[in-house]
Amino acid sequence: MSDATLDVIAIGNAIVDVMAPCDDALIERLGLTRGGMTLVDTARAHELYDAMGPAREISGGSAANTLAGLAALGASCAFIGQVADDQLGEVFAHDVRAGGIAFATPNRAGDPPTGRCLIFVTPDGQRTMNTFLGASQFLPPAALDENVIASAKVLYLEGYLWDPEEPRAAMRRAIGAARQAGRKVAFTLSDAFVIERHGADFRAMIEAGEIDILFANHVELAALTGHDDFHDGIAKLRAKVPVLVVTRGADGAVAVAGDDWAEVNAEPIERVVDTTGAGDLFAAGFLLGHVRGRGLDDCLRLGAICAAEIISHYGARPEADLKALTAPILGSPQRG
Amino acid sequence: MSDATLDVIAIGNAIVDVMAPCDDALIERLGLTRGGMTLVDTARAHELYDAMGPAREISGGSAANTLAGLAALGASCAFIGQVADDQLGEVFAHDVRAGGIAFATPNRAGDPPTGRCLIFVTPDGQRTMNTFLGASQFLPPAALDENVIASAKVLYLEGYLWDPEEPRAAMRRAIGAARQAGRKVAFTLSDAFVIERHGADFRAMIEAGEIDILFANHVELAALTGHDDFHDGIAKLRAKVPVLVVTRGADGAVAVAGDDWAEVNAEPIERVVDTTGAGDLFAAGFLLGHVRGRGLDDCLRLGAICAAEIISHYGARPEADLKALTAPILGSPQRG
Repeated sequence: MSDATLDVIAIGNAIVDVMAPCDDALIERLGLTRGGMTLVDTARAHELYDAMGPAREISGGSAANTLAGLAALGASCAFIGQVADDQLGEVFAHDVRAGGIAFATPNRAGDPPTGRCLIFVTPDGQRTMNTFLGASQFLPPAALDENVIASAKVLYLEGYLWDPEEPRAAMRRAIGAARQAGRKVAFTLSDAFVIERHGADFRAMIEAGEIDILFANHVELAALTGHDDFHDGIAKLRAKVPVLVVTRGADGAVAVAGDDWAEVNAEPIERVVDTTGAGDLFAAGFLLGHVRGRGLDDCLRLGAICAAEIISHYGARPEADLKALTAPILGSPQRG
Repeated sequence: MSDATLDVIAIGNAIVDVMAPCDDALIERLGLTRGGMTLVDTARAHELYDAMGPAREISGGSAANTLAGLAALGASCAFIGQVADDQLGEVFAHDVRAGGIAFATPNRAGDPPTGRCLIFVTPDGQRTMNTFLGASQFLPPAALDENVIASAKVLYLEGYLWDPEEPRAAMRRAIGAARQAGRKVAFTLSDAFVIERHGADFRAMIEAGEIDILFANHVELAALTGHDDFHDGIAKLRAKVPVLVVTRGADGAVAVAGDDWAEVNAEPIERVVDTTGAGDLFAAGFLLGHVRGRGLDDCLRLGAICAAEIISHYGARPEADLKALTAPILGSPQRG
């Protein structure tokens, strides 16, 4: 196994978030699944957009958000994902590259357009996501460069992208390439509804030992294991996953690796503005700690700090200086 | 003169703001005019975008921002401006209409694309704007419906739109329609560099008594009048403009109408995040007071409250509940 030249390479949805505040009555009236991620077609996307208030556009995509956090923390990263040859695709690609992330997937010509996620944010900061995958679902396995995948310490994959067929095939191929090169595979379960659709695949991958680091929130853990009880869920998985990370919203997070068990409280914040990206940025902090060889405690604390930053403002891309925020753990940017 | 059915109709640039924080060194390195608005062509827009960090997109355009504030305060408004038939045009049109503003200008097919403004925000909150006008500069005079213009209490025009030829002709025609219907014409000078290019036009319109309400900041006042001294500048204009409103950034604002002179301090705010839209939202508050028949003092206070809201976050479209913020002056939304 040669030396890794990248810290993390990720495959994920390449989508732009379109976000607006809304009241609870609108969620009800539109029949939205509060707090969840629902895939929508063109007609439904138009219907929801028409009902949405004045919005702002910020690049999103779960794994891309995680990379944005990792890159802001100083990790070397690359992204693989599919945008169309249009203005939103240009926005997404700009934001990824401007964040210092390598991104070489060619644009896809013609329809459908670049994907977007219509996010309704209720006064409690909860986000309800409606994703029009667009070009994102046509990421071809040919977009992978297996040499690049083999050059990264960690391959990071988002469960959201398991829905469309082509990217699923691409991710399976990427897992093979990473494992053959002796690299780690990290996977986030993304959403309980994704597990309803693809839980059998995920469980098979875990049984086969293909996942080295698994991220889940407590709801996803229950959906995957069939155990509503948090500890029962962890007990069922811990022997099969070398590093298991379970977030619990305001109740903090747990990481388990073999016999090690670590916990962290959520960082106190003034006001939850928008929870979009909380899990993505938790994963960013945790993975940064992991590739830097830190212990579970530090990894969890880094995750909690990054998650707290992202929920204190709109959008799932970091705004504050993550290096400064994590300096108590990683050392000041000058020294580290 | 029949009863007005609209409070304010505005003609302005239809552009989407692309905003990112940056340090002062980048402003220097890119040779940008700090604090100003510079028109850029396609090549320069690409060069600047490539140099910009991860950004967010929020609909902008000076007059459109003012209408967004007015509509949020409960005024009935209509907007005239030109977008292309593309994704950013869809974003702009959505945000205007979702704000409750009537917008009937048809999209323009083909090149150029919808306009955008690349905004670099330095740590002091100052914005440096680089505008690619795109489709916005091709607003045809035929886009005006003179009956609609005649139906609004106030016609509001932005000086920024004086640069391109077609919209300038449209605005001249709109002024004629408004005056013939006995309506008020309000004009914002927008930027000192715009006055360098078009000051002769602006001075001629003022001399001809075509402008009933004039908005300027202290720099624009000096550029227009040739008087660096604030009071000398006002003295030169006050006899020719029925209502003259001069903003002075952190030093508050002054309004003069005939023998009436009123002043307001800037609202205290915790932190200036981004000054984009401060003048636009000041105009929104002032005009709301004006169309509701309030005195100069109330108009100024409303302007100061709206300006304070907009500089406390990124973007030039209001995020907080302006009705609630202005309730001490206008009464609570339930009663008013």
